Amino acid sequence: MAIKFDFTNAMNSAIGEAHGINPRAIEALESRAQAIHQTIQTQRKSGTLGFYHLPYDDCLVRAVRALAATVRKTCENFVVLGIGGSALGAQCLCRALTHPYHNLLPRKMRKNTPRIFFLDNVDPEQVSGLLNTMNLKQTVFNVVTKSGTTVETMATFFLFYNRLKRAVGAAQIDKHIIITTDPHKGELHRIARAHRLRTLPIPDNVGGRFSVFSAVGLLPAAVVGINIRALLQGAQAMDKRCRSTRLWRNPAYLNAAIHYLADTKKGKTMSVMMPYSYALTVVADWYCQLWAESLGKRLSLDGRRVEVGQTPIKAIGATDQHSQIQLYNEGPNNKIITFLQVDKFRKQARIPHLSGLSPSLHHLMGVELGELLNSELLATEFALTKNKRPNVKFIFDAITPENLGGLLFLLEVQTAFAGGLYNVNANDQPGVEEGKRATNALLGQDSPQALQKKAELDAFQKRKRYQCL
Amino acid sequence: MAIKFDFTNAMNSAIGEAHGINPRAIEALESRAQAIHQTIQTQRKSGTLGFYHLPYDDCLVRAVRALAATVRKTCENFVVLGIGGSALGAQCLCRALTHPYHNLLPRKMRKNTPRIFFLDNVDPEQVSGLLNTMNLKQTVFNVVTKSGTTVETMATFFLFYNRLKRAVGAAQIDKHIIITTDPHKGELHRIARAHRLRTLPIPDNVGGRFSVFSAVGLLPAAVVGINIRALLQGAQAMDKRCRSTRLWRNPAYLNAAIHYLADTKKGKTMSVMMPYSYALTVVADWYCQLWAESLGKRLSLDGRRVEVGQTPIKAIGATDQHSQIQLYNEGPNNKIITFLQVDKFRKQARIPHLSGLSPSLHHLMGVELGELLNSELLATEFALTKNKRPNVKFIFDAITPENLGGLLFLLEVQTAFAGGLYNVNANDQPGVEEGKRATNALLGQDSPQALQKKAELDAFQKRKRYQCL
Repeated sequence: MAIKFDFTNAMNSAIGEAHGINPRAIEALESRAQAIHQTIQTQRKSGTLGFYHLPYDDCLVRAVRALAATVRKTCENFVVLGIGGSALGAQCLCRALTHPYHNLLPRKMRKNTPRIFFLDNVDPEQVSGLLNTMNLKQTVFNVVTKSGTTVETMATFFLFYNRLKRAVGAAQIDKHIIITTDPHKGELHRIARAHRLRTLPIPDNVGGRFSVFSAVGLLPAAVVGINIRALLQGAQAMDKRCRSTRLWRNPAYLNAAIHYLADTKKGKTMSVMMPYSYALTVVADWYCQLWAESLGKRLSLDGRRVEVGQTPIKAIGATDQHSQIQLYNEGPNNKIITFLQVDKFRKQARIPHLSGLSPSLHHLMGVELGELLNSELLATEFALTKNKRPNVKFIFDAITPENLGGLLFLLEVQTAFAGGLYNVNANDQPGVEEGKRATNALLGQDSPQALQKKAELDAFQKRKRYQCL
Repeated sequence: MAIKFDFTNAMNSAIGEAHGINPRAIEALESRAQAIHQTIQTQRKSGTLGFYHLPYDDCLVRAVRALAATVRKTCENFVVLGIGGSALGAQCLCRALTHPYHNLLPRKMRKNTPRIFFLDNVDPEQVSGLLNTMNLKQTVFNVVTKSGTTVETMATFFLFYNRLKRAVGAAQIDKHIIITTDPHKGELHRIARAHRLRTLPIPDNVGGRFSVFSAVGLLPAAVVGINIRALLQGAQAMDKRCRSTRLWRNPAYLNAAIHYLADTKKGKTMSVMMPYSYALTVVADWYCQLWAESLGKRLSLDGRRVEVGQTPIKAIGATDQHSQIQLYNEGPNNKIITFLQVDKFRKQARIPHLSGLSPSLHHLMGVELGELLNSELLATEFALTKNKRPNVKFIFDAITPENLGGLLFLLEVQTAFAGGLYNVNANDQPGVEEGKRATNALLGQDSPQALQKKAELDAFQKRKRYQCL
């Protein structure tokens, strides 16, 4: 693994005291860091923090690889039905470690792996559209939800189940479905047993947003030919690097502390992740879920109303230099930016020498695109730092399964530790329950609570409205 | 056109005085609104605000349609080379008004139109990857940059120019390139003339982020078969709806006022756009550029240092209910959310009745996905409003070129008017210049200024660094 973490431009030496972190502020957190570290270690050992154990489950790797090999041979389309943490991890791995236009290539150029689709929504146009692109006889669906009650995933599962039954017949349907869910309980687990469907487990102690190294992330990755063992080795290596109790020596704890201090002491209420690499774009989406859902909490661990959480934002380099950077440079100084840099890309493409061009463009001649992209990153970093906007950087020597596994694991540890700094439960999501209850009530769920919620919603709908147009 | 704008949940009657807008605060803006309206009208008449005139250029529509018809007949791949405003508008139109998996369909199902690609970055892996997907002999490139000096676009243009020359020969190359640029000046204009390439104009008084109704947006849209005349008619109809000087009657001015008041009086420093429709997802990206780059400014019109601008954020319904909504509901109350709702989708997909399921899922049986999606939207709106988080909503009766043209035009007017409220120049982007200069210096541009910048960058690189890992 070869990732570097550079946080020079978040410090007071680079951007001054008003916006930069004073090293003493980090040192002042050391004793809290010790306590948080102890809690995390206890939870790791007791099994509450399941994500720590995932990179070491060799038994799972063998099961996933065997299943993936079967799937690869027989199917042309692999469709993941999952939403949020049940889709983002696998999407992130596939974007980073397959061809950028994987689904448009002929099978041979895809290394004999299937096309891969992630259906993470219930838009009827999108769902119908997806059906136009594939022959269901050549398709395998991977249904991913831990609880087995996620409305969106179950809705699309039922829909495709019915279509599959018509297309391949009830007797063959088990060849076209793989269930990833709780191994012991839940509706999807029950359905899988009743219909003898193939299953992979999501351990009870692993939340969706921490599940990338479980079967949730590993099966889709293995199906498209990603070396999942190397991925996990990268996570293991990062686990070793993130064991120090000293903030200065532990990159995950340190970056958590930098973000926490930037948010709570310097008004950086937003955390932008900006990869300068197409392959790493979905890392930003994955991080946005991890950071938002883990830390965005009303109540502290001791039950006080705190309403904390930094808002994560995805930006793409160099593209968003032509969209967001104007605001980042000149607008309110309320963001900390994390760049992802790749030193050596897997492909080269060089701007040719052309004649007859204006001298103002001569300096582009012969430049390799990776060099151009990294010059743009450095230039953006330079301009932001001049404007006293804090920024940090993860530098990959190259995009490999090891490095990616390392970065994702680091960000998980960082998030768990940040939960300690913010003093919130990083593993729950109580703020989505009200919406779920309301959805079920609107769809006519039959329970006293649902009926009461429906009445509330009717009143909400009947209020006097402000409208224009 | 049939769009509605509902802002009930941004008002004090729905979410209280601490977070909601008091109608009197809107009324208090009326006299400023009059003055801003006058300025806008003057700029519209003098031609400074070119975007107002674009929907009425029938001559352009005819030229674009004729060119698009030729392209459609002969080519299999249409590749737009452009970045920021030179790509987002067209991408937004194509996502909304073509099949959701357009590029994966056989030609016949694409209504005999080419596949369409937007290359809006210089990642060497992405660029090389794109070349793997297409035969250049069947490909037309649309090179889009007003100034003709946009580094990213010119870099990829030169690269593909060279490849094309090898693939089709110098004599045929003009059939494979269409230039969209300033009609009178600039390097790309010069190249187009020298090589007799087909061109379409970007008027001098239209900035990239306001160019969706120019050839920048219209050509790619027409190539994939979108009814651009209907699109412009929608924009025209909205123009008529947005002429009132009264805030309560002008949806564009009103929404600008709501966002301005939410930001400056209620601490809503972020503006989230959350479409509940796959087709409308890129509207959010387009809006993010428009809002960020127009309003994120250091200096006011009278030269004071103000550092203003709301940070726009894209979220996708229902997907991001499983990612961001926890934070939006329970974290800091610092966002205003704009939902995009579609009453009637162009396709239906119904959850089938399956037997043997647990009663907890019975209410899903027979539900149409559009109904599920809109129930989720209402449930999210309900939960956010209960938590006193301001939100507004645009409601499409359906996704049509007219409605989309109307919404985009409204958002442009809203942005121009918001520039007046924030008292900044909504049409420039001085905050990206430093990064551009630094990029050119790093690539070895030969000028005294570039050499000086390079020395600055060398010093920046040589600073003592904070690193971990």
